[in-house]
This record gives sequence, C-alpha cells and structure tokens, in this order.
Amino acid sequence: MESMVTTVRAAVLETTGGEVRIGTYPAAPAQPGAVVVDVLHAGICGTDIHLQDGRLPVPLPVILGHEAVGVVRELGDGVDADATGDRLRAGDHVVWASSIPCGRCHYCVALHEYSLCEQRRVYGINQSAQVWPHLSGGWAERIYLQPGTALFRVPAQLSGLEVVALGCAGPTIVHGLLGRAAPRVGEVVVIQGAGPVGMAAAMYARLAGAGTIVLVGGPAERLKVADELGVCDLALDIDRHTEPEARIDAARQVTPGRRGADLVIEATGLPSAVAEGIAMARRGGRYLVVGQYTDHGDTLINPHHITRKQLEVIGSWAFSAQHYERYVRTLPQVADHFDLVRLVTEYPLAQVNQAMSDMRAGTIIKPVLSPRL
Amino acid sequence: MESMVTTVRAAVLETTGGEVRIGTYPAAPAQPGAVVVDVLHAGICGTDIHLQDGRLPVPLPVILGHEAVGVVRELGDGVDADATGDRLRAGDHVVWASSIPCGRCHYCVALHEYSLCEQRRVYGINQSAQVWPHLSGGWAERIYLQPGTALFRVPAQLSGLEVVALGCAGPTIVHGLLGRAAPRVGEVVVIQGAGPVGMAAAMYARLAGAGTIVLVGGPAERLKVADELGVCDLALDIDRHTEPEARIDAARQVTPGRRGADLVIEATGLPSAVAEGIAMARRGGRYLVVGQYTDHGDTLINPHHITRKQLEVIGSWAFSAQHYERYVRTLPQVADHFDLVRLVTEYPLAQVNQAMSDMRAGTIIKPVLSPRL
Amino acid sequence: MESMVTTVRAAVLETTGGEVRIGTYPAAPAQPGAVVVDVLHAGICGTDIHLQDGRLPVPLPVILGHEAVGVVRELGDGVDADATGDRLRAGDHVVWASSIPCGRCHYCVALHEYSLCEQRRVYGINQSAQVWPHLSGGWAERIYLQPGTALFRVPAQLSGLEVVALGCAGPTIVHGLLGRAAPRVGEVVVIQGAGPVGMAAAMYARLAGAGTIVLVGGPAERLKVADELGVCDLALDIDRHTEPEARIDAARQVTPGRRGADLVIEATGLPSAVAEGIAMARRGGRYLVVGQYTDHGDTLINPHHITRKQLEVIGSWAFSAQHYERYVRTLPQVADHFDLVRLVTEYPLAQVNQAMSDMRAGTIIKPVLSPRL
Amino acid sequence: MESMVTTVRAAVLETTGGEVRIGTYPAAPAQPGAVVVDVLHAGICGTDIHLQDGRLPVPLPVILGHEAVGVVRELGDGVDADATGDRLRAGDHVVWASSIPCGRCHYCVALHEYSLCEQRRVYGINQSAQVWPHLSGGWAERIYLQPGTALFRVPAQLSGLEVVALGCAGPTIVHGLLGRAAPRVGEVVVIQGAGPVGMAAAMYARLAGAGTIVLVGGPAERLKVADELGVCDLALDIDRHTEPEARIDAARQVTPGRRGADLVIEATGLPSAVAEGIAMARRGGRYLVVGQYTDHGDTLINPHHITRKQLEVIGSWAFSAQHYERYVRTLPQVADHFDLVRLVTEYPLAQVNQAMSDMRAGTIIKPVLSPRL
Repeated sequence: MESMVTTVRAAVLETTGGEVRIGTYPAAPAQPGAVVVDVLHAGICGTDIHLQDGRLPVPLPVILGHEAVGVVRELGDGVDADATGDRLRAGDHVVWASSIPCGRCHYCVALHEYSLCEQRRVYGINQSAQVWPHLSGGWAERIYLQPGTALFRVPAQLSGLEVVALGCAGPTIVHGLLGRAAPRVGEVVVIQGAGPVGMAAAMYARLAGAGTIVLVGGPAERLKVADELGVCDLALDIDRHTEPEARIDAARQVTPGRRGADLVIEATGLPSAVAEGIAMARRGGRYLVVGQYTDHGDTLINPHHITRKQLEVIGSWAFSAQHYERYVRTLPQVADHFDLVRLVTEYPLAQVNQAMSDMRAGTIIKPVLSPRL
Repeated sequence: MESMVTTVRAAVLETTGGEVRIGTYPAAPAQPGAVVVDVLHAGICGTDIHLQDGRLPVPLPVILGHEAVGVVRELGDGVDADATGDRLRAGDHVVWASSIPCGRCHYCVALHEYSLCEQRRVYGINQSAQVWPHLSGGWAERIYLQPGTALFRVPAQLSGLEVVALGCAGPTIVHGLLGRAAPRVGEVVVIQGAGPVGMAAAMYARLAGAGTIVLVGGPAERLKVADELGVCDLALDIDRHTEPEARIDAARQVTPGRRGADLVIEATGLPSAVAEGIAMARRGGRYLVVGQYTDHGDTLINPHHITRKQLEVIGSWAFSAQHYERYVRTLPQVADHFDLVRLVTEYPLAQVNQAMSDMRAGTIIKPVLSPRL
Repeated sequence: MESMVTTVRAAVLETTGGEVRIGTYPAAPAQPGAVVVDVLHAGICGTDIHLQDGRLPVPLPVILGHEAVGVVRELGDGVDADATGDRLRAGDHVVWASSIPCGRCHYCVALHEYSLCEQRRVYGINQSAQVWPHLSGGWAERIYLQPGTALFRVPAQLSGLEVVALGCAGPTIVHGLLGRAAPRVGEVVVIQGAGPVGMAAAMYARLAGAGTIVLVGGPAERLKVADELGVCDLALDIDRHTEPEARIDAARQVTPGRRGADLVIEATGLPSAVAEGIAMARRGGRYLVVGQYTDHGDTLINPHHITRKQLEVIGSWAFSAQHYERYVRTLPQVADHFDLVRLVTEYPLAQVNQAMSDMRAGTIIKPVLSPRL
Repeated sequence: MESMVTTVRAAVLETTGGEVRIGTYPAAPAQPGAVVVDVLHAGICGTDIHLQDGRLPVPLPVILGHEAVGVVRELGDGVDADATGDRLRAGDHVVWASSIPCGRCHYCVALHEYSLCEQRRVYGINQSAQVWPHLSGGWAERIYLQPGTALFRVPAQLSGLEVVALGCAGPTIVHGLLGRAAPRVGEVVVIQGAGPVGMAAAMYARLAGAGTIVLVGGPAERLKVADELGVCDLALDIDRHTEPEARIDAARQVTPGRRGADLVIEATGLPSAVAEGIAMARRGGRYLVVGQYTDHGDTLINPHHITRKQLEVIGSWAFSAQHYERYVRTLPQVADHFDLVRLVTEYPLAQVNQAMSDMRAGTIIKPVLSPRL
C-alpha cells in the first residue's frame, strides 16, 4: 500500500553549534498502532535554538521539529479514530501531542500527571534519527507517529498555517493558563514577554474574559503586530521602559487603585523577570511562571513579598495530550478573534538555517517550515 | 457596674531598642459594642522581638501582646453573643481575633479578604497606649476590645494555657495550611523551622492526615520537645546537618522514590530557606511560604525549578476572624493529640524582660505572661 | 443642605394579591454613614411578582424594588468613597448591593459567606415602609441607603438603562457562574431558561469563553431577542420541543460525541427542569442550579445519575457585595458585547401595575420603572 | 517455570438468580506484560449480590470477585516493577486496581478521567470466564492480570486480611471523599449508611481530621462494631429513629447552632436517602453522593434547597489506578487507627454461597473468601 517514495528529506541537527543539514532517511510503512503523516508545516521554536546551542542534552543526530501539522498518509492496523474518538482516514489533516508518556512511572500511573513523566519520548527532541523509525521529527517531508501518540483531526475551518502559528506555545498556555492559573472574567492580566508564549497567553486571556491585558515586551515590531491583532490593551516596550521600576510603575498604573494585577504571566525565560512580575501583582494575586523552560540559573527574589501579598506562584511545564486536546478544540475560537497567520513567516525546508537565523535576529515572530513549498 | 479598680498595669514598649516597662493606665467601662476582658495569659511572639528591635514601624508607646486569653469583665451594650452566635456573659473565658479590618478598603468590601486589609487595627501592635481606650494590648491586667472585634468563647475542655500555647502561630497555620495549602491524607510533609509556627504546622498537618512529617530545625532542645510531643516522624537538626544539600538529601530520602515532599512548609523567616524548600519538594508539589512575615531582603532562587517541577508556591499572611474561628473550633482536637502546655514557660507580668531575653536565647519555646501570677 | 422636597412618591405593595399603589413618604436627610439617592431606573424582577402573589413572607406595606440605579443626592457624614475606595460625591451615578448582611451571625463573622447571612436586610423586600427610614425600596423617586450598604460608582461609559437591564440577574450569575461554577474556555454550555437569569448566564458564559451556548426556553419572542443579541449559538424553543426527551436529545446533539454538555445552568425556577438538566450534562460535567430561588416543592430526580456521571451539582443563592463589585466591574465588557438596552421596556412610576401585568404576560423581557419619565 | 498445576478452581456465576458454582479452568502462563497471581483473599461486595440478582448486565459465565489480594506467581516479560516503580518479584504480596481503562475514549485520552472510561474492563464483573485468559475474577485460586493492570506491592506492615477488609469501598471513598469532596480538619461529617462504604468513609473522614462524625445506619450489630472500632462519635440507629425527620433532627442536634453538617456522605444506595441527606447539610455545605452505584430509579427531591443552601452535591463513581495507589499508600494509616480485621468474616472458597447468603442477611459486615483455607 506504501507508495514508491522510499526516502524522505529531513532537517537534521548533527552537532551542537553546527548548522542544520538536509539529509534523507528511509521511509517505513506504518506498523500496527502507528500513523505515517506527510508534513505540511512545522514550526521553529525557541527551544530549537536552545538545542542547536547545546543547552539541552539530546541524542544527536536528531531531526528537529516538535510542532507540526500534516496529512495522514497511512494508518497502521488498529488505528481508525483520533484521540477524541472521531473517525480517522488517510488524507485527513492532523496534529498530535508532541510527547508520549512512558505510562509506567509514578507520575503516569499513579498521578496521571503526564507532563511530569520521568521518561517521556518527545518528537523532534529526544528521538535519535539513527534509531528506528528514524522519522521522529517534524522538520521533514514525513513523520512516523509511534503507537501511543495522541492524534487529533484538524477542525475543518482551520488552515494548516493557523494550526501551526502558535506552535507549542498554544498548548503550553492552555496547560498553564487555562489548566492551572484559572483566568477569570474581568481580571487585569499583565504578560511579560511578547514572543509566541506571551502572544498565546494574551489571546487565551482575552478569550477567558480578561478585562485589561498589558503586554510587556519587545522589540517594537512584535508589539506592533500585537497591537494590530488586538491581543492587548496596552503594550509596554521594554526598549523604552528600560528600568524594571519604570515597567512596574507603568503596569500598576492601569490597575484599579494601582493595587497591581490580578494575574501576571511570565513568558520571557529570563530569571530576572520573576522579581519584576512579583512586584506587578496585587495582594492576593496569582503569578504564572511558565516561561522558565530552560535553566538559566539563580536570580534575586524577595520571598517576603510572597508571604506579605499572599501570592500564589504557579509553575507549569510543557503539556500533555489532555492540554493538546483542549488546544485543538479551542483553536477555532482563537482564530475567530485573531489573525493567526499574521504571526507566521514561511520558509521552504531547504532554507531552515535562514529561518533559524532570522528567528535569532528577532525580526520575525514565528518561522514555519513548509516542506511542500 | 464597673468595679473600683481604676488603674491597670501593663507592659509598655516606649522606645525601640529599650526594655519594656510596667506602667499603669486608667480603666474604662465598656462602651456599646465593646468588651472589657481581664487577661489570664498573653503570649510573647517573635514579632514582639522584632517590634522591640524596631523592625516594624509602630506608634510608641504601645502595650504589646497580640495573643491572649481572658475572662469577660464587662460587656458593652448590644453584645450578648460571641462571633459564632453563642451566648456571652461576664465570667466567660474568651479569646479574640487580634485584628479589626477597616471594612472600607477594596480587600474588605469587595473581596472579603480581611488579612489583606490595607488599614486594619491590630491589638498589641499598631494601637498607641496614649490613644483612647489605651488598653489595646494583651500584656496587661486588662484589655479593652473595641466594637468589631471577633470574640470567641473558649471551649470548655481547654485550659487557658492550652489556648495560648500556640499563640498567633495557631491561626496563622490554620489560614496558611488548612485554608490555602489544603493538606491531604497520606502526604509527605516537610516543615522548615521548629519554632511555634513550625510546631503548629506539624500539629495541623498530623491532624489533617499527613503520612510522614519531617521537621527541619533547631536547636536540639526544641527538636527534643517536638519528638516527645510526637509532632513529627523525623526531626532533622540543622546544627548537625549544617549544609543545605545535606538537609535536602536527608529530607528527600524519606520520600517515596526520593522524589521529594508533596508539601513543604516554610516557617523559618529566613530568606535562604526558600531555595532549600523548593529543592525539597517533588514535581507537582506545593510550597507554603508562611514564615517570611518580616522583610529580610532578597535571596537567590532558581525560577526554572518552579516551572520545571510545576510547583505551586503559596504565600499566606497572618489571619482574619474566619481563620481564628476555625482555630478555636479545632483547638480541642489539637489538644487531644498533643500536650500543648509542654510548649509553654510561664512568667509573671513583671518578668516580661526576662521572658523576652529567654526567648531571644532560644532556650524556651513559648514564653507566656500571666498577670495574675 | 437638604432640598425643599419633603415628600417622595413610591410604589407600595400593601396587601398580597393586591395592586401596587403610589404613595408618598417623608424625605429624611442622610444620617452619618448613610446615602440618599435619587432613583433613575428601577427594575421589576420575577421575585416582585412572587411577592405580590404572597409567596414570600414580607412585612407589608413595602416599597418594592431591589434593583436600581440613581444619582447621589446627599452623603451622610463619613461617606466619601464607594466600596472600591473611589471618591464619591453628590451627583455621581451609583448602584448598590441590595442587601446588608447582619455582620453578627456565623455565616457573616466566621465564614464571610454573606449571601448565607441569617438576618440580612434587603432593600425592596424585607424593609417595611412604615419603619424609619421608610424609603427602603427602589420603586420610588428616592431611596435612603443605610450605613453598611456597599455602593459603587457607575463606570462612566455605561448608561443608566444598561446598568439596570440585567437587574439582580446580573450579580446573581456573577456569583453562581463566575464565583461557583467556574466556566472554562471552549466549554459547551446549556442554559435552561430565557428570562433575565438565563440571558445573563449566556452573556457571562460567552464572556468567559464558552465554545458553544445552547439556550433552552421561550417564548419565541424572547428567543428572537436572544438570537439578535447573539447570546447563544442555538436556541431551543420549548414550545416547539415540548417533551423533555426531545429537548435533551436536541441539546446533546450539539455536544461532541453527543456526550452531553460540560456545564448546564438551571435558570427556570421550575423543579421539573432539574432532572432534565441532569440528563443534558456529560459524565464529569457540572450543573449550576441557580434558578430555584423560591420553593416550588419536590420533583422526581434519579440520584444514580449523579453518582454514575460524577456530576457536580452546585447551588447558588442570590449574591453579596463581593459579587456585586465584580458585576459592576465587568458590566462594561458585557455592554461591549451585547446591546443590553434591547432587553428593557421602560415605564413611568405611575404605570407600575401595567408593567407588572406585561411581565406576567411574558411579552416583554425586562420592565424598568423610571420615576423621572 | 510454570508449575505443574494445570487447572484452577474458581467460583463462577453461570445464570442470574442461580447459585454460584465451583468450576475449574485451565491455568495459563503469563504473557508479556501480564502477571499471574495466587489469590490469598477475595472480598464479597454488595455489587456481587446485585450481579447475582441480574441487576447489571454482565457476560455469563463470570468468575466473580473484583477485590482481592494475592501472591505473585509469575511475572510476564517486561514486568519488573509495580505501578509506583517499586521492584516486583515472584512471591511478593500484591493488590491491583480492579479495572483497565480502554485508553482510547475521550475520557481516557483527552480528559484522563479513567473512572469515566466508556469501555473499561473490570475483573470479576465484565470479563467472561469463557474468553481467554478465563481467570479474570478474584473468587479463584489464581487470577491472570492482563497487561495494563495497575499492580501495587502490599506495604510490609499489612496482613492480607487488613488489605481486603474494606474491599472496593476503600478506594471508592479515597476517590469520592479525598479526591472530590475534600474533607477539612474540624468538620462535622454525617455519613448515611453503615456498610463497608460508610465504614470506609468514617475512617477516612477521621484520618482527615473531622471534628465530629455521625454514622446513620443499621442494623445494631454493625453500629456496635463501628462503636468498638471508634469510627464515629455518634451512631444513629435507623431501626430506632425510623422516621427521616427524627434522623434529621438527631443529626443536626450535634452540629453547632443546629445549622447542619459541613459534609454529608451518602453511602446507602437508597434513593430516598438523598432528600434526607440534603436536609442534614448546613447552608454552604457539601453532599457527597457516592452510594448510588446501581440504578434504583427516581426519588422526590426539593431542588430549592440546593439553591437556597448553596449546596455542592458531588457525585463520585468507582475509582481508577490513581485512587487505588492512594488507597494502598494510606492504608497503613487506616490500619494504625482501626482494627480492620474486626470487619471481616472469612470463608473457604467452597462456602461462597453461604457467605453470600450471610451477607444478604446483614449479620456480617465483610465476607471474605480465602481459597487456601
């Protein structure tokens, strides 16, 4: 049943610090429980930059790409529905949760907290391209989704680019914001960071009925897009408000009685942002720390403020199938409110290094690789 | 109706850094809504030491004492019941919430979060002895409880010393632990600090069904009392485990799979304890930061751990009538399990300076002034 | 300072079953802590109909009207700010929480659950017009707001009719839906009842990010308005779907996999609606029972479904200052999304009986009395 | 490696209404991922009586027994640890979650709510004895645990009878009470029903710090055991308080101010208990409906009380691996407090029909089959 194409092009990271190379890998038919997907679009994420820089230990060579959308090419035996029970057929547009939990550790079996799984497999991150089934990353013409992957059919009204525009930032925020920080109608929300996670946070905060949304970030180009998309009520440019105190004052100024924000969301990845976020929150407020994905070391924090203000500081790590399902289910609402494609800059697979370098330069928001371009 | 005693002895802090002096103040009859109480016992709290050291701005002179138990001497017009609706009469043993919220700020009127009130009056702390009704602290023969004070009759089975043994640490933990950190049956709980707050935390954690309780603190005398009272399963002496890493290892060692504690409670007041507590918690765990009552400045914290572990870091500040009611209601259960009087060292009012100095020396756990001694 | 007008016209219910009569009452200047307000608009609520029918015991005669908006005429001594701390002056447009909790019962003092207060005073309901200060209902030219009333300045962008359009249904839903049932982005919400409570529920559910909203109610005129306002995605006319089974099927049909709604909201007041609502909810769903305000007796319910489906059935009663503050704060967002005035039919005070009879006929949604008309 | 024993004795239900028969089935070696266990003890549960009566459709013949403890006889390839990661070996005493979720339905994949799984396999209930591996019920000398079963090593300090004494009532209450109803220190808890579920509820409520526990049930023998074990502070005998009103009054009488219980737990299975439980709860209270496991039809309930009292009525159904893990982890605490073996009456496998008939008679609390007797 498998077509004649026997090799697949993929973008592979072979050495840390080096460029990504386009290689070819043998195509395999779908074993029972697996699904083979032709990739339409795959996002480039800040974590990919960190991988290239060698900040996370991964088994090289690795086909990068942990966020993608594609077309079902072949369903292995026993797969006839997606993870919500909807019928699945070749030709369907699909997305999938990027990780497969081990299903055996304490967090999986006893707590059902899959984002805390001690041994999960993650597409595009910790699956070596040298190990069968090789095609375990999204920056490729094709990806082999192993049994246990939670797949979801793309809602009919969404284009492929809309689906990939927020990348993993979308489900990360669904987990952190909707799943853990519980936004409430009318709240004043301050978001630190104007990258994809910050943008996704602002969009979902709006969807959840936030009364006022302040986005603190940069550079100006990104804030301009944020403004055009209508994701925030006030954008504070960190290149103009260069001092923490100035940002804190400006953010508090829009809160009732200057008491501070009901909810602050950290989406910068910079340790120093945390003390600043604590200062922006009101007494009794909540602080979602979702951006400290990689370890950048210690920072100075005054814990008295946590006690005195009765803050709730909430960490949230990545996401699991549960959050991805919710993300796919709510994405049409996001797309109704915001022009998601406006975030995307598209590149053919061969221009992957250009795309990564543009991302490093901060001149674009969301680079996307489209193997069919 | 008022008796002939027209002056009342009280222990007054007149200058920061100075000794406490025994002075006399005129007794006033109870105005409508007020209650005059003869003090039986009044606790000395770490905050009193801070006040003497001038670490909190207060209006001097001030009759100290924010934790006390007494006998109703006179009820003002309109007062015939305590805050739970139980009938109140002269001669009843009573306790009271130490603060009166303003009832007008945003936190009071709109949020009903009275511990966050912006202008609350606190007995023994921010009520000058020079301002009517003068008798606004517990270190005195008598205290004048103003209208709006939440009074509670002492449950019949409790002695006065049992009531005052935990001092304000009791309701502070009822607020923080029961009200905010929600302990669960079977959890592994690590408590940092063996003072009254740590002791109260351990007792209430036990009451709430904790499976294993580790108390990290010192000096050895305190841990010996903790052990005798049965408040913990393991006591880690910080004078023997002098390095943070050693304490972290020892605490994790008793947790299943060395994954860390389900719940860590900070009750030290030392900023440096916070990074250590974060390291002691398991992925998905909770960290109650209740001990950072006064501002001791910044400390180094790695916020990546908050994200990576999905920690919930919960601040809790003081308490309000709601928590005090729950404290009084549950105190008989605490007293059934633990010999509370074992914590107390009693002093006559005149020996207040000796009591404070013994407390500074750490040789006793809970000094209590008994004006009738 | 008080003007020359010494009598005030008001609509008084004197006997149950009888018509409401226009009477006059003496005006009183504002005592300390009180506020005198000239009424602009006062809503007529289903509860007023119940009061006229004698279904709730109230002290007659009573000036009805528990929902209103007005202009501050006079501030008593000590009142210079509203309940959020904003400055208050004569001439300001204001609204107020309709009840004053006793501040002495267990629910007030110990639990801070003011909607459960055992002895609260409610404007327009349990305050006799014969007892000073007489003017204790909103269906009048003027109302005397006693000390302890939580007042709120009307946000500048709102007209008086917008403020009164949802009446007490608005804060009732803020309490029940936002405060207790915690709606989540993307949920399928079924609302039983198309009166003001159902309309308010739909509006706030939309604001909170509901993915699909089904409104089950009638008559057709109301559903037409609901449709024009855009409050729901699907309106099920109970005059067309006359059998419960048909309504249950139709509601489930729009839920994914026909599993049922994530959240069902009962806003009918009919006991029989409850079994139907339970059938409409999915396994693991929530059911907010907010409409059973008056006692209409028993109904048949199968409790096995509560266990089997793991339902959470949540009762919610009226509201307190906390919810009213949140209502006023979020009303501008509601008004941005929905044309609130479309709900209102305005009458002069003298046509109160006509207004009540139109309401009984169901030909209008929200009758409002405007004393200045 | 498999021993010579090639057939296994088991108690099989062949026809509804009929007696259970002892049959023999072929033993199979453990396939990869499976575990073969020699049964030590297996509980008889009320559900088994319902199955015999034909109240639940099951595939006959079926080896009954969904609660058991045993010794590992053989581990299939790939199984070297239990569900908490502890090493597992032949000879270990083990228990296991009685159901295996399908892992493919919406509740499994998207919501991780495994007790709501639409197609779960349950040992001793919906696995036919005619289908391989045949040995799928606990009333047998041996059971074959299929891949996907969550096994747990029995804590060393527990005897087999202690482990089986509460049967499935234990994890059912861990799910309902600890997982959903969140008991709090000091609460007044009323429990309806003195069977295993009611007993387990009382024990766990005590462990969680309940201040006062009232057990409403019968017959007198059971209440006598409850009293001897110390599971409640007050036992209300329904044979002496035969009218609901009398029971409601008696239960409310022990609550502060007769306001009603903070938490009521329904553990009777009788629909009529629900209206009674609602009446026993205080305003703002919670009502856990965990006993309506099988469908006994409609009952009269007044939903006005749900609204007026702001009740939270919480359904809870069975349990999943998550709850079972917590049950096993906390069982040593339960056993420390209560003499669990006191609940048990032991029978050899051959006397299964006698055991069932004794259970129907209500003369014993927990019949247990011990195949090795």
